Amino acid sequence: MTLTARYIETAESSDLTFSVCSLVRSQEKYDRLLSSFERLGFTPSNSEFLAADNRHVNRFDGYSWHKTLLAEARGRFVIFSHDDVELIDQGYAELLACANWLDANDPLWLVAGVAGGVWHMESRRRRPALSLRISDKFGENRSAGSVPCRVESLDECFMMMRRTRPVISSYGPDLCLQAELLGGRAYTIDFHLRHNGEAVTGNSFRAIRRRFAIKYGPFFPGRRLNTVNGVIELGGARRSPGN
Amino acid sequence: MTLTARYIETAESSDLTFSVCSLVRSQEKYDRLLSSFERLGFTPSNSEFLAADNRHVNRFDGYSWHKTLLAEARGRFVIFSHDDVELIDQGYAELLACANWLDANDPLWLVAGVAGGVWHMESRRRRPALSLRISDKFGENRSAGSVPCRVESLDECFMMMRRTRPVISSYGPDLCLQAELLGGRAYTIDFHLRHNGEAVTGNSFRAIRRRFAIKYGPFFPGRRLNTVNGVIELGGARRSPGN
Repeated sequence: MTLTARYIETAESSDLTFSVCSLVRSQEKYDRLLSSFERLGFTPSNSEFLAADNRHVNRFDGYSWHKTLLAEARGRFVIFSHDDVELIDQGYAELLACANWLDANDPLWLVAGVAGGVWHMESRRRRPALSLRISDKFGENRSAGSVPCRVESLDECFMMMRRTRPVISSYGPDLCLQAELLGGRAYTIDFHLRHNGEAVTGNSFRAIRRRFAIKYGPFFPGRRLNTVNGVIELGGARRSPGN
Repeated sequence: MTLTARYIETAESSDLTFSVCSLVRSQEKYDRLLSSFERLGFTPSNSEFLAADNRHVNRFDGYSWHKTLLAEARGRFVIFSHDDVELIDQGYAELLACANWLDANDPLWLVAGVAGGVWHMESRRRRPALSLRISDKFGENRSAGSVPCRVESLDECFMMMRRTRPVISSYGPDLCLQAELLGGRAYTIDFHLRHNGEAVTGNSFRAIRRRFAIKYGPFFPGRRLNTVNGVIELGGARRSPGN
């Protein structure tokens, strides 16, 4: 018989700790990302860097690149990072500590990020309850709520999951609800980085959010979702004031 | 800079067509599986065979092996097959034709199998509406309904998905509902094989089904699910007669 099987004995058999995946449009920004990761302990022997190549042509859209890179990733943990992210003072050791903390404290964790909306806040407050620590266009080393924290939405700029427990979606709130439907949980982690993004929330963003609210209405009737871009009412046409 | 990224240009970059994954308890049965696949066109250059190794020790349970092997798979399509399956007269070419038919006819397909319960039957019939073609302990080359067909549950003995569109779960009906929650669909395909399984439906099976019905009740209130092992009422304690 010429067919031979590969017998797999352990649930986790990866040599690499992290697969850092990015949708890359700008070589200049991405080189800054890579430099900052190299400066803070990421090496070719502990991590791989996968880039969905949109440098010259738009080969991937915001919804397809997660799936493609996840299917290529070999690390124990898969990171999805915008190409305009830079590490500042925390690196490989701190990120691994965050991942190990999640593994140790909640086996049901499926996704984690650096900014998100607090899970199931009781009060019907007008402003979303957030958990975050980040440097971005809104400020240096700003924070809200406590971190780590269980959340129901995540900012897409930097997210992490286990390769053997994938959750598929590239929209942060969608990813958290998919994790919930899989019986798992989402968290913020205390991993300080800089996001140089513009946080654009134009017409296409509002259209995506509207489709999202309609999609999940039947599954989570009456649920209000805390997100870093305002409260989303699932199912209904209503939106929170100011959003 | 020592860190270099791998730039990925296409959504689908696999050299292998199929990753055939099995939870292997019996070497003897699995060797028959491999022989039948080899006889019908599967080669090391078009397919890989991954075995979650339970031959000597129970390293994997029925819920963990899908996740582990999916994370290792490199083929364009991932097959999850019981180790007691044997091909009869259809092989590589026919299975690829089924996969290509799904790709061409419904881009939203996420999982496919050889036996399942018809999707959203209107009538409140007592017996589930099935779609299947299979040889097993109940008969040779038996069939029900039309195949291919959109389904809401699948028999776990043989299932297929795209590596870049994974759905996580190892219980056939659960897999179909997860596909639905992801915005996708499940199908039966006309791929005739022999399943030598015993189709045991004892206490542990009933416990799994009860947990499953309770889990999904809030997401699909009032839904009745056609499965090859009877109708499941999601959410409620009621069960169909005879089940």
